[in-house]
Amino acid sequence: MLRVSKYFGFTKDRAQHHDIPGKASVTPVSDEPNGPVADGPGSHRSSQRHTAVDTPPAESNVDVLIIGAGPAGLMAAAWMAHCGIKARIIDKRNSKIFSGQADGLQCRSLEIFDSLGFADRAWKEANHMIEICMWNPGSDGVIRRSDRIPDTIVGLSRFQQIVLHQGRIERFFLDNIKKYSNDTIQVERGVLPSSLTIDESKVDTDEGYPVTVSLQHLSEEESTPKQQISGSKVPDGLFRSSLTQEDDEADLINTSKSRAGRSEVVHAKYVLGCDGARSWTRRQLGFELEGDSTDHIWGVMDIIPLTDFPDIRMRCAIHSADNGSLMVIPRENKLVRLYIQLKEVTPDASGRADRSKITPDLIFGAAKKIIQPYNLDYEYCDWWTAYQIGQRVGTNFSSHNRVFLAGDAVHTHSPKAGQGMNVSMQDTFNLGWKVALVAKGIAKRDILSTYETERRQVAQELIQFDHRFSRLFSGRPAKDVMDAEGVSMEVFKDAFLKGNMFASGLSVDYAESNLIVKQNSAGSLAKGLPVGMRFNSFKVLNQADGRPWHFQERLKADGRFRVVLFAGNILDPDQKERVQAFCSKLDGPDCFLRKATPSDAPIDSVVEVLTIHSSKRTETELLQDFPDILHPFEEHTGWDYNKVFVDDESYHEGFGDAYTNYGVDKERGCVVAVRPDQYVAWVGELQDFGGLQQYFDGCLEFGNTGVKINGH
Amino acid sequence: MLRVSKYFGFTKDRAQHHDIPGKASVTPVSDEPNGPVADGPGSHRSSQRHTAVDTPPAESNVDVLIIGAGPAGLMAAAWMAHCGIKARIIDKRNSKIFSGQADGLQCRSLEIFDSLGFADRAWKEANHMIEICMWNPGSDGVIRRSDRIPDTIVGLSRFQQIVLHQGRIERFFLDNIKKYSNDTIQVERGVLPSSLTIDESKVDTDEGYPVTVSLQHLSEEESTPKQQISGSKVPDGLFRSSLTQEDDEADLINTSKSRAGRSEVVHAKYVLGCDGARSWTRRQLGFELEGDSTDHIWGVMDIIPLTDFPDIRMRCAIHSADNGSLMVIPRENKLVRLYIQLKEVTPDASGRADRSKITPDLIFGAAKKIIQPYNLDYEYCDWWTAYQIGQRVGTNFSSHNRVFLAGDAVHTHSPKAGQGMNVSMQDTFNLGWKVALVAKGIAKRDILSTYETERRQVAQELIQFDHRFSRLFSGRPAKDVMDAEGVSMEVFKDAFLKGNMFASGLSVDYAESNLIVKQNSAGSLAKGLPVGMRFNSFKVLNQADGRPWHFQERLKADGRFRVVLFAGNILDPDQKERVQAFCSKLDGPDCFLRKATPSDAPIDSVVEVLTIHSSKRTETELLQDFPDILHPFEEHTGWDYNKVFVDDESYHEGFGDAYTNYGVDKERGCVVAVRPDQYVAWVGELQDFGGLQQYFDGCLEFGNTGVKINGH
Repeated sequence: MLRVSKYFGFTKDRAQHHDIPGKASVTPVSDEPNGPVADGPGSHRSSQRHTAVDTPPAESNVDVLIIGAGPAGLMAAAWMAHCGIKARIIDKRNSKIFSGQADGLQCRSLEIFDSLGFADRAWKEANHMIEICMWNPGSDGVIRRSDRIPDTIVGLSRFQQIVLHQGRIERFFLDNIKKYSNDTIQVERGVLPSSLTIDESKVDTDEGYPVTVSLQHLSEEESTPKQQISGSKVPDGLFRSSLTQEDDEADLINTSKSRAGRSEVVHAKYVLGCDGARSWTRRQLGFELEGDSTDHIWGVMDIIPLTDFPDIRMRCAIHSADNGSLMVIPRENKLVRLYIQLKEVTPDASGRADRSKITPDLIFGAAKKIIQPYNLDYEYCDWWTAYQIGQRVGTNFSSHNRVFLAGDAVHTHSPKAGQGMNVSMQDTFNLGWKVALVAKGIAKRDILSTYETERRQVAQELIQFDHRFSRLFSGRPAKDVMDAEGVSMEVFKDAFLKGNMFASGLSVDYAESNLIVKQNSAGSLAKGLPVGMRFNSFKVLNQADGRPWHFQERLKADGRFRVVLFAGNILDPDQKERVQAFCSKLDGPDCFLRKATPSDAPIDSVVEVLTIHSSKRTETELLQDFPDILHPFEEHTGWDYNKVFVDDESYHEGFGDAYTNYGVDKERGCVVAVRPDQYVAWVGELQDFGGLQQYFDGCLEFGNTGVKINGH
Repeated sequence: MLRVSKYFGFTKDRAQHHDIPGKASVTPVSDEPNGPVADGPGSHRSSQRHTAVDTPPAESNVDVLIIGAGPAGLMAAAWMAHCGIKARIIDKRNSKIFSGQADGLQCRSLEIFDSLGFADRAWKEANHMIEICMWNPGSDGVIRRSDRIPDTIVGLSRFQQIVLHQGRIERFFLDNIKKYSNDTIQVERGVLPSSLTIDESKVDTDEGYPVTVSLQHLSEEESTPKQQISGSKVPDGLFRSSLTQEDDEADLINTSKSRAGRSEVVHAKYVLGCDGARSWTRRQLGFELEGDSTDHIWGVMDIIPLTDFPDIRMRCAIHSADNGSLMVIPRENKLVRLYIQLKEVTPDASGRADRSKITPDLIFGAAKKIIQPYNLDYEYCDWWTAYQIGQRVGTNFSSHNRVFLAGDAVHTHSPKAGQGMNVSMQDTFNLGWKVALVAKGIAKRDILSTYETERRQVAQELIQFDHRFSRLFSGRPAKDVMDAEGVSMEVFKDAFLKGNMFASGLSVDYAESNLIVKQNSAGSLAKGLPVGMRFNSFKVLNQADGRPWHFQERLKADGRFRVVLFAGNILDPDQKERVQAFCSKLDGPDCFLRKATPSDAPIDSVVEVLTIHSSKRTETELLQDFPDILHPFEEHTGWDYNKVFVDDESYHEGFGDAYTNYGVDKERGCVVAVRPDQYVAWVGELQDFGGLQQYFDGCLEFGNTGVKINGH
C-alpha cells in the first residue's frame, strides 16, 4: 500500500517510484484497497472526512482522473460526461476565473463547441474578429495601413474566429458537464495531487485500476493563487507568465502552512494530466519539454483605449520603424488587448528577464511609441502581464497509454497567435472519446496510441508556426529591398495568410492508423472529404420535415462513430439496388453494426448511420424509398425521422449543394466512416462493404454484449 | 380606506365601486396610506407576515402591477425589467408549467424575443415548421397529398415559424426578467386579487397611485389547479378549455377552505390585466367580450405517433371526405400535436357540448377515421383537451388609461392557427414600453390611448382571420365544382396562403396617432419601411470592425426611441454637407435629443441615433467622415463604435443590400424615427429636421432633467 508523506512526489518519492523517465516503477498496490472503497464519480464525497494522522487515507476507484480544470481538462471532462464515464476532475486552485488569459477561439474550436452544444453561447457573447489590418512604416517612417485581409479565410467553416474571455468559456464547459453528467462530474477545487504510481502488471489488461494517485485537499487559503504580486489594484498575470521561475508554483504551495485537510488515494484506469506548462503530472512521469526561448520580451495589456487610431476595433499587426511591434486584438465590451514588444527589456545572462522591472507604465509607454503619431491612452486596465517568447514540445505524451499529458503540459509557445487554448482543447477532444470508448469496452485499447502520434504532430506544427510567425513579427521592418536584416512586409503578409489556415485549426490531417485508413481510391470518391481531416459542413435538408441543417450539426459529440451513406440518386433503379444491397449487409447479423452494439442497446448506440441522398426531396418518401435500417423503428416511439437527409434547396436558407462541395458523385454516391471527433476515417464505394467492415474491425471490440451504453 | 371582505369583488364589491361599465367609481382612498408603506418592487416582501383579523392589511405603492403571469403578463414584466420600472407581477396559480397549451411562435414573436435577448434559446430548442402539406380526398374519396406550401412566406423575416412548449417560453421570460431587473421583479405566485378601485381624481395627474388593488396570498393547496379532472394519468386541459363553464375558476378557488394567508393592499400607478379569457380584471371593470361560438367541437392531443402516414413531421391540413378534418403540428422531441374535428359531438340547447362525453379514446378514434387508409397509433400521450370554436373581442381595452387589459382578456378564438400566445404577447409588447416611459416621465401620458386603437384593430383582424379559417377548415370538402355546400380546396389553399401573411404577425400596420405620423412623402423615401409597420431587417456592417449585423439586432427592447440616419453616399461633397447640417441641428441645444434627455444622462439614453451609409466601408473612416454626434465620445470609455453601419458586402455572410431592400436612395438617404417596439414612426428627408423635431415633440416630454434613466 502506498503512503504519501510529502506534497511533491518528484523529490524523494519520484526517485523511489520513477527511476527512468518513460518507465514507471512497479509498486505493490493491492487490487483490494484496504480503505473504504467507493466506486464512481461523486461517491468519493460520501467518504469525505478529516483523516487523523493514524487513520489510513480513504481510497476509491474511478475510471478516469483528470488533473487540471483549465480548458484542456474541462474538454476531457466534457467527453466523459457525454459518454457516461465515471470520472473526476481536480484542480489545485480554488477559483476558476482569472482576468486576461487566452481568449481567441479558432473556427475548429467553435465547431467542437457546437458538437458539445454550446457554440451558440460563445458566438453570442464574443467579439467577432472580421478583418486584419496591417500597419507598416512608409518611406517617411510613419505608420500607415498597408493591407486589409479577412481574419478568417472565406468559405473555410461555418464559424469565424472570435475572442472571448477564458472565464466565460470555462463557464460554458462547467454548465455543459453538469448537464450531461447529471451533476455527477464536478470540478473539485483546492485538491492537489501528491504522488502518482503506475502498476505495470495491470496496464495491458482490461481489469483493475493500474494508476494510483494520492490527493491532498487544501484549505481555501492554500489554494488561492497570489495574483497581485506587485500590489497594484489591477490583476496581473505575472505569476503564471513565462518570466517566472519553474519553482514558483512549488513556492505557492509551500508558503502555506500545509497541515492541510484530509488526504485520499484514488485508483484510476486512466489519468489525464492537463495541468499546464509546469505540469505536475509530467514531472511525475519524468518527461521533459524540449525547445528554446528567444530573447524577445512582450507585454500584454487589456485596456479600454481612448484613441484616435482608426483601426482599434480591428485585429491589427503594427510594425513601427524603430520602436517594435504591436498587435491589437479587440475584445468583448469595449476592451482591447494589446501585445506590445518591449525592446528595452532584454534577458540577463541566465536567459531570463528581470520581471521586477516590468510595470504597466513601462509596457504602455512602449505601446504609445509604436502607435505614434496616433494618440493612445486609457483610464481602465483590466489585466496585464509580460512573457518571453519560447517554443517547447513534450518528449512524450503518454506513459503506458494509461497516463496522458495534454495542453500546455506538452507544448508551450507565445500567446499572440491565439493558438494555445485551442490546441490544448483539441488535444483532449482527440483523447477524451478514445479513453471513454476503451474504458467502456467499446473500442480496442490500442487506439490509445494514436493520441500521441496524432497530437504530437500537431504540437510540432504549432511550434513551427509560432516560431516563424514570432520571428517575423518581432523583427524590424525592412527599410527597402536591400535591407536584408529587416523583415519584408510582403513576406510577413504572406506568412500571415498562410498562417491563417493553420490558425483556423482546420488544416489538421491525422496520419494513417487503425482509426484513419487512407485508401488510394478514397480521394476520387469524395474530394471534399479528405481522410484524416475533419468532416466539413454544408447544409442539407431533413427528408422527413424539410428543415435545413448544417450537416456537422448532426455529428454530435456523443461518443458514436458514424457511417455517412451518400446514397446518390435513389430514384435510379440501379442505384436503388446498390443502396438496398448495402443496407441488407448493414442489417445482417455479422455486420459491425450488430457486432459492436450490445444486444440490449439501440442499434445506433455505437455506430450511427446517417444518409444523404441527391434526388429531389419532394419526389422521394422516407418510409417508401429508404430501407428500414436507415431510419430504424422503435416500438414505443416509432420511426426515426432524423437520420435521412437530402441535398436539395431550402425555402429560407439557400442550397448547400453538398454533393458538389463534398465532391461526391450525385448518381453513385459513396460511404464515409466518421470518428466520434468528426474526423473522416474511411471512404469507399457502396460495394466495398468489406472495407467498411474491416475498418470497424480494426478499432472496435465486437461481441461485447455486457457493455453499458449511455442512452441515446 | 378600502376593506376587502370577499374574494371576488364583482358581486357586492363591484356593485359598490363600479356602477357603470367603463366608468370607475370614485372611492376615498387616502394618498397617505395608513399601513406600513413600502415603495418599489421586492420591498413588499419585507412586510410579509400573516395579518391577524384585527390588524389592517399591509399597504405599499408600486408603479406597475401586472395581474397574470402567462405570456402576456410576462412580456409586460420584461418591458418593466428592461426599462427599470418598479413593478410587481402576480398570478393566482402556484406553478408555471402546464403540458400542452399554446406553442406556435410567429416570425414577429421571434423578432421580439430577439430584441429582448432570447430568440436564440427558442430557435435552438424548438421544432422548426418548414412546410405545410394539404391532404384532400381524391375522386375515390381517399385522402392524398394535393399541395405543399412553405409554412412561412419566403423572405418575410429572418425567422420562420417554430413550435415550442409554452412552459419553455415562460422559462425564457423568467430568466430574462430576472437578469434585467436584477432580481427585483419576480413572479409572485398564489396571489389572488380581490378588489380593484380607481381614484378618478388622480387619473389625469402625474402624482399619486390612482389604482388600488387588494391581494390575498393563497396557500399552496388553494392555488394548485386541478388539472386531472378525469382521473386519468395523462394531464388534460379541460379545466381551462372553452367547454368549461364561466364559473369553473371561481369554483376552483371557492372549493378551497379559504381562510387563506395574509392580505395586502397595493396602490399602483398602472395595472395591467393579463389574466386570461375569464379575466378577473375585466370583470372588475365591467367590460365584456363580444362575439359568438360556433357549434364546431375540436379535440387536441399531444402524442408520440406510431404511423405510416408520410407527412407526420410536416404541418398538415387534412380534410377527409366524410369524417371531418385533422391538423398535424409536429413538435419538439418526437411529439406531434393533432387538432381533431369531433363531428360526433355537438352542443346542446344551451350552446355547450357535454364535456363528460369527451375522452382521449373518443378524440383519437376520430383522428384514426380521418387519417385512414394510413395507420395511426400511440403509446404515449402527453396531454389532451377539447374546445368549442368561438371568437370574441373585448368592448374596451382600458379604463382611464390606468387599468389595461391584454391577451385572452380581450380576445379569444380557436387555437389551431397558433395565434393566441403571439397576439397576446404582442399586446403587451405594444403596451409595456408606453406605460414604462410614461411612468418615468419620458413620454407624454396621452400616448397610452394608442394601445387600444392599435391593438383592438389587431384583435378584430385576428377574429376575422380565425373565423374565415375555422369555417373553411371545419367544412366538408366539396365533392366537385357543383357541390356548393362543400368547401373548395382551392379556396381553402388560397385562404391558407393569405392567412400566412397575417399569421406571421408582420402585416400589422398601426394607424396614425401621435406615435405614428404618416406623411405623404414618406412612402417615396423608403418604400421598404412603411410607416406604421415593423422595421424590417437586412444585414449591414459595423463601420468600425466590419462585423455583419441584422440591423434589427441593433433595435433592442431597452425603451429607447431611435433615429436611423440613412446617410447616403457620405463621400459625395453635397451629401456630406447635408449630413453635417443634419448633425449640427441634432447636436444643437434645442434639439429633441438634448431636450428629451435628462442633463445628467448619456445623450443616447432616450433617443439613440444609428447611421447606415452607402459608401464603401474601406473608403470611409468612422472618426474622420462622420460627425461626433453619430458616435459620441465618453471620457472614460472613448468613442462609441457601435452606432455607424455601412451597406456593404461582408466577407462571410453575403451582402444585405439594405438600401435597395429598404427602398432608400443611395445618394441622398433619408431619416427614419423608430419606436421602442421597432415600429416605423416617421420618415422624412435629411432637410426636414423640423418634421423630425415635431414628431418627438408630439410624444416625448421635453426638459425633464429629474428623470431617472436606466443605464445604457
